[in-house]
Amino acid sequence: MAEASAVVLPPPPDIVRCASVELVVTDLAAARRFWVDVLGLVVTSESDDVIHLRTFEEFIHHNLVLREGPVAAAAAISYRVREPADLDRAEAFFAALGCRVERRPDGFAEGFGDTVRVEDPLGFPLELFHDAEHVERLAWAYDRQGTAPLVRLDHVNQVVPHVPSGRTYLEALGFRVTEDIQDADGVTYAAWLRRKPTVHDVALTGGDGPRLHHVAFATRESHHVTALCDRLGALRRSDCIERGPGRHGVSNAFYLYLRDPDGHRVEIYTQDYWTGDPDNPVVTWDVHDNQRRDWWGNPVVPSWYTEASPVLDLSGSVRPLVTRHEAGEMDVTIGADGFSYTRPPGGSGDVDGAEGFKLGTQL
Amino acid sequence: MAEASAVVLPPPPDIVRCASVELVVTDLAAARRFWVDVLGLVVTSESDDVIHLRTFEEFIHHNLVLREGPVAAAAAISYRVREPADLDRAEAFFAALGCRVERRPDGFAEGFGDTVRVEDPLGFPLELFHDAEHVERLAWAYDRQGTAPLVRLDHVNQVVPHVPSGRTYLEALGFRVTEDIQDADGVTYAAWLRRKPTVHDVALTGGDGPRLHHVAFATRESHHVTALCDRLGALRRSDCIERGPGRHGVSNAFYLYLRDPDGHRVEIYTQDYWTGDPDNPVVTWDVHDNQRRDWWGNPVVPSWYTEASPVLDLSGSVRPLVTRHEAGEMDVTIGADGFSYTRPPGGSGDVDGAEGFKLGTQL
Amino acid sequence: MAEASAVVLPPPPDIVRCASVELVVTDLAAARRFWVDVLGLVVTSESDDVIHLRTFEEFIHHNLVLREGPVAAAAAISYRVREPADLDRAEAFFAALGCRVERRPDGFAEGFGDTVRVEDPLGFPLELFHDAEHVERLAWAYDRQGTAPLVRLDHVNQVVPHVPSGRTYLEALGFRVTEDIQDADGVTYAAWLRRKPTVHDVALTGGDGPRLHHVAFATRESHHVTALCDRLGALRRSDCIERGPGRHGVSNAFYLYLRDPDGHRVEIYTQDYWTGDPDNPVVTWDVHDNQRRDWWGNPVVPSWYTEASPVLDLSGSVRPLVTRHEAGEMDVTIGADGFSYTRPPGGSGDVDGAEGFKLGTQL
Amino acid sequence: MAEASAVVLPPPPDIVRCASVELVVTDLAAARRFWVDVLGLVVTSESDDVIHLRTFEEFIHHNLVLREGPVAAAAAISYRVREPADLDRAEAFFAALGCRVERRPDGFAEGFGDTVRVEDPLGFPLELFHDAEHVERLAWAYDRQGTAPLVRLDHVNQVVPHVPSGRTYLEALGFRVTEDIQDADGVTYAAWLRRKPTVHDVALTGGDGPRLHHVAFATRESHHVTALCDRLGALRRSDCIERGPGRHGVSNAFYLYLRDPDGHRVEIYTQDYWTGDPDNPVVTWDVHDNQRRDWWGNPVVPSWYTEASPVLDLSGSVRPLVTRHEAGEMDVTIGADGFSYTRPPGGSGDVDGAEGFKLGTQL
Repeated sequence: MAEASAVVLPPPPDIVRCASVELVVTDLAAARRFWVDVLGLVVTSESDDVIHLRTFEEFIHHNLVLREGPVAAAAAISYRVREPADLDRAEAFFAALGCRVERRPDGFAEGFGDTVRVEDPLGFPLELFHDAEHVERLAWAYDRQGTAPLVRLDHVNQVVPHVPSGRTYLEALGFRVTEDIQDADGVTYAAWLRRKPTVHDVALTGGDGPRLHHVAFATRESHHVTALCDRLGALRRSDCIERGPGRHGVSNAFYLYLRDPDGHRVEIYTQDYWTGDPDNPVVTWDVHDNQRRDWWGNPVVPSWYTEASPVLDLSGSVRPLVTRHEAGEMDVTIGADGFSYTRPPGGSGDVDGAEGFKLGTQL
Repeated sequence: MAEASAVVLPPPPDIVRCASVELVVTDLAAARRFWVDVLGLVVTSESDDVIHLRTFEEFIHHNLVLREGPVAAAAAISYRVREPADLDRAEAFFAALGCRVERRPDGFAEGFGDTVRVEDPLGFPLELFHDAEHVERLAWAYDRQGTAPLVRLDHVNQVVPHVPSGRTYLEALGFRVTEDIQDADGVTYAAWLRRKPTVHDVALTGGDGPRLHHVAFATRESHHVTALCDRLGALRRSDCIERGPGRHGVSNAFYLYLRDPDGHRVEIYTQDYWTGDPDNPVVTWDVHDNQRRDWWGNPVVPSWYTEASPVLDLSGSVRPLVTRHEAGEMDVTIGADGFSYTRPPGGSGDVDGAEGFKLGTQL
Repeated sequence: MAEASAVVLPPPPDIVRCASVELVVTDLAAARRFWVDVLGLVVTSESDDVIHLRTFEEFIHHNLVLREGPVAAAAAISYRVREPADLDRAEAFFAALGCRVERRPDGFAEGFGDTVRVEDPLGFPLELFHDAEHVERLAWAYDRQGTAPLVRLDHVNQVVPHVPSGRTYLEALGFRVTEDIQDADGVTYAAWLRRKPTVHDVALTGGDGPRLHHVAFATRESHHVTALCDRLGALRRSDCIERGPGRHGVSNAFYLYLRDPDGHRVEIYTQDYWTGDPDNPVVTWDVHDNQRRDWWGNPVVPSWYTEASPVLDLSGSVRPLVTRHEAGEMDVTIGADGFSYTRPPGGSGDVDGAEGFKLGTQL
Repeated sequence: MAEASAVVLPPPPDIVRCASVELVVTDLAAARRFWVDVLGLVVTSESDDVIHLRTFEEFIHHNLVLREGPVAAAAAISYRVREPADLDRAEAFFAALGCRVERRPDGFAEGFGDTVRVEDPLGFPLELFHDAEHVERLAWAYDRQGTAPLVRLDHVNQVVPHVPSGRTYLEALGFRVTEDIQDADGVTYAAWLRRKPTVHDVALTGGDGPRLHHVAFATRESHHVTALCDRLGALRRSDCIERGPGRHGVSNAFYLYLRDPDGHRVEIYTQDYWTGDPDNPVVTWDVHDNQRRDWWGNPVVPSWYTEASPVLDLSGSVRPLVTRHEAGEMDVTIGADGFSYTRPPGGSGDVDGAEGFKLGTQL
C-alpha cells in the first residue's frame, strides 16, 4: 500500500485532531450514571436515546455520543478537518482506497455540520467534519469541574490484526508515528500516530480486529487521576478500574483504565509530550522491556490485552473480526513462554540485581 | 493475658512513638545504594559495617540502622519513651511478663543513650530509649529533599500467628487499636495500634511469626509517592516495587511497597488521619471487602501476604517461626476458595453491577 | 505570673486538642454560603439562628458554630479534654487564676456535654468539654469532599498585647512552645504553642487584644489549597482571599488566608511537622527574616497585621482592647522604619546579591 | 499595515514553534548558578563565554543561550520553521517589510544550521532556523529532573508601544490571536498569539518598546511550580521571586515570575489549553477585571508592569525605546486613577459583596 499511496492516492484531508467518539450502549441510564455522574463529563444535550457529552475545555458541541442500541459497540470515530474543502478531499481519498463513503450535508450527529463517514481500510467507521456548533468552553469553571476534570478528548486506540499495514494507511492519511513496540524479529506489536502535536490521536494495537480498544480523555494533572480512583472507591465502583493508575513508558503519560457498564474501555490520561516538530524522534520500545507499558513495571492485566469493543459498519452491523497471525504481546511477555526484563540483558543497568523478571515472579 | 494485665502487670512505660528500626543487611554497599541513593534518606553517620539514617523532619540521631551481617533480619524495633524513668518502668513491665530484658546505660545504638532491649511476648526485639543525640532537622531543606522526601518514620508492621493475643499484650503496653480486619466468624486477620495520634505505630498481620512485615516512612503528599515510582523507573529499578501505589482502605493512607536488596519491605506512606481522641472510633473492615487493603480494588500480590523478614533475638540468632492456625487472609479472599466483593452482598451499593468480584476475574 | 504558676496553681486539665470555635455572624445566610457552599464544611445540624459544622475527618459533633448576632465576634474557643475529671481540674485551675468560670452539665453548645466556660487571663472565652456526640466520620467520602476538603480543625491564632505573658499562662495550662518570632532586643512578636503534636493548637500574635486573629482548617495536600483559590476565582469571590497561598517559614506549612462575609479570618493550612517529642527543638525566627512569615518572601498585606475579630465575654459583651506597647511586627519589617532581609546581613547566604530587601523594593 | 499584508506581502514562513532565546548576561558564572544550579536547565554545551541550555523534553540542541556581554539584553528570539524552504520565504517576507535581514548557512548559534536573522518591524531580533542538531530527549530521566523540571520552552512576551500594530504584523506572519485585554474604549493592553496549538508562542504587552518582558518555560504540573518556590526559599534566593505563584485568568495557566541576576524575567508556566482548531474562540478580558492577570485576584507588583529587558539589533547595539502613548494597564487598574473589580458592576456576580475592589484596599 505504501507504493499505492505514493503513486495514485489523491491528497488526504487535513485532519486537525481526534474530536469525538460515538458509542452504542445497551442501557443509556446506566451509561449516563457512569459517564456523567461518575466521570463528570458535561451534558451538551440529551434525549431518550442519545446523550451528547463534552469535556471542560471543549468549545465544539461534543466529544462523546452515547446512543442506546441492542449491541455495545463503537459506531463512529470522529476527526475534525481544517476547512470545508477537506471533506471533498476525504471523499476522494477514501473512494480511491475503495472504501464505502457516505456524506450528509446536515451531518450525522447533532451539533456537527456537513460530514463524511467511511468504512476505512482497517474496518473502522470514521467520521470527518469541519462545521460544528460552538458551546461554552468551561475551562475556567473550577466550581463545576470536580476533583478529576476531564478537559480534552485525547485519542483513540484501535485493535488491528496487522499493525504495519495500518500504519502505512494512516501515514497516507497524514498521520506520523511517534512511538512503537517491536521485537528483535521485526514484529510490530503496537504503534502510536498523531496529527495534533501530542503522542497520538490514534494508536494501533495488534490483535483480532477491527475493535476499539479505548477512548482516552485528558485530565490536567496526575493527582486528578488518583482522585478519580479515590472517588470510585467512595462510590463502591472500584471494580470499574481495570488497570492502573500508572505511568506509561510509551508516551510518558500518567494513566488509568476504566470499563463502562457495557465494557467500553476509557483511559484517563495526562502529561505526554510535544511531538509537533517535523523531525520528532520516533521512540521504539522492545516488547520485552517490562517498563514499556507501565514505567513502574506493574503487570498488565490479561483483559486489557484480550478485550475490546466491536465496531459497526455504516449500516449499523457489527464488523466481523480478522484474526491476528503474528505473535501476541501478552503471549511473548507473560508466563511460561514469554518474558520481560527490568534491565536489558547484558545492559548497563543497576548493579543490584539481574534482569529483574518482576512480572514472572508475580503472576 | 487480658486478666493478667488487669491484675498484676506494673505500669507500662509511656511510649511516645515508634522511632527507629535496625535491619541486618547482607551487602551494606547495596543497601546504601537503595536506602540513600535511591530513597534519599539522610546519613547521620556511617562506618564500614553500619549506617545510621534519618528522615528529613527528624531531629534525633536516626530512624534506621543498617548493619551488615550474615542473615537479612530485623534486629531491633525502637520506641522512644517520654522520660528516663520510663526505662525503669519498661524493665519492670517486661520482667513481669517473663521476657528477657537487657539494659545498657550507654545504649545499644550510636546516638541513643540509656536503653532497654527486650524479647517481647510476641518474639520481637524491642528497644526503648529516651536520651538521644539531637541532629539538624532538615524540614526546610527543600534544596536537598528531592522529589520524594521521606520525612518521618511512621510505623512498623509485624507478622504474628494470633492477632488477638498480640493486641491484648500491646494494649497492656499502652497501645490502642484504631482499625482491624475481621470476618463474620470473629477471626481477626490484622489490627492497627497506635501511641502517637495517627492510625498506628505498629500493625499486627496474621501469619507465621514473629517476622517484620515492613517498616513505613511517611512522605508529605501523594504525588511524592508517584514521583518515587517515576524515579525508580528511570533508574531501571522498578522491580523493587512490590505493590502499589494505591490508596489503603484501612488507614485511608496513600501507599507504595518496595523491597530492598535483601528483601526487607519498606512502605512509603502518607495522609492518614487524627486518632488522638480518647474515644476515637475503631474501624472494623470485613476481610471480604475488596477495598479494605486497596481502596481502588487493585489486587494484593501474593508475596505481600507470604514474605516477611526474620527477626533476631537478643543474642543475634534468628527466631524460629510459630505457625498461624487460623484462616489466612490471602486464602479467604483470592481464588477458588476465597472471595472479595466491591459492594456488600445485599447491600446498598451502586445499582450498576452485582457484587463486583474484580479480583476473581483478574487472577 | 510565672512564679504564681510554679507555686500555687492546681494541676491543669489535660487538653487533647483545639476542637471548635464559635463565631457570631451578622448574616447567617451569607455566612452559610461562605462556610458551606464555598468552603464545603459539613453541616451536622442547623436552625434559623445557628449552624453546627464539621470537617471531613471529624467524628465529634462539630468544629465550628456559626451563630447569628448583632456584632461579628468570636464567642468561644473550645478545647477537648481527656476525661470528665479534667473539667473539675479546669474549674479549679481557672478559679485559682481569678477567672470568671461557668459550668453547664448539659453543655453550652448542642452536641457537647458537660462543659466549662471561662474568661481566661488573656481575655478570651475558652470552652472545655469532654463528652461529645459522635457523628459519621467522612474521611473516606471522596465522592463528597470536593477539590479542597477541609479535614480537621487545626488551630486558632489569638492577638494579645504581650506575648511572653500569654506564653507563661499557656505553659501553665500545659501547652508547649514550638516556634516563635523575636528580635535582637528580646521582643517577642509571636509564639506558637501546642497540645497535640503539631506545630500548634494556638498561636499568640502581638497586637491590641484580646482578638481572634484566625481559625485554621487543615486540608490534606497543598494542591487542595490552590484548587480552592481556583474555585474562588470561578465563583467570582477571589476578593475573599486576603493573603497567600504560600509556604510559611514558621511551621513549614502551606497556607491561604480568607475573610468571611463578616471579616472573620480563616486559614487553610497543610503539611506542618511532628512536635510530640518531649525535647522537641524550639525554632526561633528573626523578625527581620523575610522568609519567616512567607518562605517565598512574598509580602504580608497590612490588613493581616492590623485586623482581627473582637471576642465576647461570658455575658456576650465585646471585650475592650488593651493596647500593645512593644514594637509591632509590621512596623519593624516594612517601609521606611522597618526592614527585612532574604539573606542575613554578614551571613553565609548565596553569593549572587546582597541582603535581598525584596519587600522594600515592592511596596 | 493590514492592507499591505493583504495586498503585497509574499507568503510567510511556516513557523512551528518558539524554540529558543539568546540572552546577554553580564556575569556568566552568576547566570549559570541561576539557570543551571537553581532552575535545573540541562547544559548541552558550554565554554568560557556562552552556555547552551535545554529543557528535559527537548530534542534539539538548545532552548536558551546565555552569552556574556557588557549589557544585559535579549539578543535573539528563535523560531523553528517547518522546512528549509521556509528560510527563503522568511528572507522574502521580511525583505518585503523593509527589515534588515541576515542569513548564515552555518547558523548563528551552535547546534542550529542555516539561519535567518532579522530586525523585525517591532524592533526585535528574530531568528528562524530549521536544521538543528539532535540531542538526548530526557523526558523519562526522572532521576535527573528534580522537583521542578522545566520541560519545554513555552513562549516569549514582548513589550511594544502599540499592540494592534504588532498584532497585525504577527497575523501576517501566520500567528493567530487567542486572547487579549481591552477596555471599553477599544484600547488593547495586551494580546496573545500562537503558532503551536497552545495559548501562545508570543504575547504582546503594551509599553515602551521594543523590550523582552519575559521568556517562559513549562513545567508539568502546578505543584512543580510551588516546589520551585520552596527550593528558592531553602537556597535563600526567594528575592528572585517577583510575582506569584498564581493562576492566570488569561491562558488559565499556573504561573510564577522570577528575575535572573541580570534582571531578565523568566516565567514558570503550566496547564494552559488547546487552541489548535481553526475557529478557536478568542477570549477578550476587560482590563478592569481583577482576575484577568491573576485569577485569584492577587495584585500585580508594579515592577512587573514597568521593567523589561532591552533588546539588541543585529549589530549588537541596544535598541532605543519608543514610548507608548495609549493608556497603561497599571495606571488604569491600580490606585487613585485606576480601578479593578472582582465582580462586574451591575453583573450577575455573587450576592455577598459589592464589586470587590480588593486591589484598592491592599495597596
